[in-house]
Amino acid sequence: MKNAVVLVSGGLDSAVALAVARRDIGVTQGTAGGVLHALSIDYGQRHRVELDAARKIAASMGASHRVISLDLRAVGGSALTASIDVPKDRDADELSHGIPITYVPARNLTFLSIALGLAEVLGSRDLYIGVNAVDYSGYPDCRPEFIESFRRTANLATKAGVEDHDSHHRGFAIHTPLMSLSKPEIIRLGVSMGVDFSLTTSCYDPDSAGLACGRCDSCQIRRRGFADAGVADPTRYSSNPDGASTGR
Amino acid sequence: MKNAVVLVSGGLDSAVALAVARRDIGVTQGTAGGVLHALSIDYGQRHRVELDAARKIAASMGASHRVISLDLRAVGGSALTASIDVPKDRDADELSHGIPITYVPARNLTFLSIALGLAEVLGSRDLYIGVNAVDYSGYPDCRPEFIESFRRTANLATKAGVEDHDSHHRGFAIHTPLMSLSKPEIIRLGVSMGVDFSLTTSCYDPDSAGLACGRCDSCQIRRRGFADAGVADPTRYSSNPDGASTGR
Repeated sequence: MKNAVVLVSGGLDSAVALAVARRDIGVTQGTAGGVLHALSIDYGQRHRVELDAARKIAASMGASHRVISLDLRAVGGSALTASIDVPKDRDADELSHGIPITYVPARNLTFLSIALGLAEVLGSRDLYIGVNAVDYSGYPDCRPEFIESFRRTANLATKAGVEDHDSHHRGFAIHTPLMSLSKPEIIRLGVSMGVDFSLTTSCYDPDSAGLACGRCDSCQIRRRGFADAGVADPTRYSSNPDGASTGR
Repeated sequence: MKNAVVLVSGGLDSAVALAVARRDIGVTQGTAGGVLHALSIDYGQRHRVELDAARKIAASMGASHRVISLDLRAVGGSALTASIDVPKDRDADELSHGIPITYVPARNLTFLSIALGLAEVLGSRDLYIGVNAVDYSGYPDCRPEFIESFRRTANLATKAGVEDHDSHHRGFAIHTPLMSLSKPEIIRLGVSMGVDFSLTTSCYDPDSAGLACGRCDSCQIRRRGFADAGVADPTRYSSNPDGASTGR
């Protein structure tokens, strides 16, 4: 494996996925290693601060970084892309049941499709995505059966996939190194590979300075993950969700 | 079926696909019919004149029309999105072999994914795309095996697909009414349903006034289609490819 294309949102999970891809292609072993391509999508998300985070994360791991614009506000239907309030302070039971309003219709399928086109142009057959079926089981496009179906479709959809098939090569692979890890396990894996989590942002509804709300689903899952992992949480919150002093 | 989302490029094929969708949902039968949504993607294509054509085609069939922007120039790798010359005057043998440089990596997969997200938001389960495996056999993402694989993936990728599966509904369908038709058959089908082909544009490399070159693969296949169908070609060419007077 010489090249990898990694979907990097700016969040915690995809930063760890990027670190795993970096290890897999041997970037850490110097000039013999492959080329690491980070891809972010500017889809009109309300938490656009994550694109800045993605750029810093990519730079910290020696990856090239490109941002491709796709205006999903023209589609709407999600609290992340339309004028719908982001849910706050949901309890553990609410967090673990059903598909939340922050679901963006067909997002991972669309982003993987764009990443696939880029990989084909760059001569890569290896895509990485930081999906996880444990903490986000509500999102259908984070499940292994979706990823496997996408892999098959990707190899039918592309010139490279068809040519690889005809010459008995393996074609495109979709790597999901976090699929079966819990959030604390993802955080510990990241720490072991030197991921600087202070560069990442998970909040769905940051304030104008980019500080995390601490109360949306994503903030809650992230905070609990750091606590359960026994790792200091480097997140800058706009106010301390536990009622104490401001977090920075 | 009450709503349909149709990918409309501005070309000949998707105009006929839109007409078929219109018939299927009963728009032609008046107020009892469904709602027809045309979707075009502004992907940085060199032949952006097709977006104007798509708007006119949608209006002519009573469809709503939206354009979603996706900057595939940031991906490149195709004569349609990068600084690569569009091939001209290729002979019949060249036209029928191999995947041409006008192939845009993962385009149909990406466009169908965007259409899927829109369909989910609009409550539609029916997508239409004017792909055709006869005249464009070089494009891997026009083949029935790709479409069937996408359908399976779409139903795993989405909240609506998962909910339909759980409640034993059929989920998303991908309609490809032109899949096994020849170009003359597509043209005759369109004529029978009142498609105004003068609104459509197929040229990959139109001039600044939007006139067709008459010499790229797409123009050649279109011209021959009208000739073989015995239908007058309403296309406005920048110069007559046969060397006679300007076609108008």
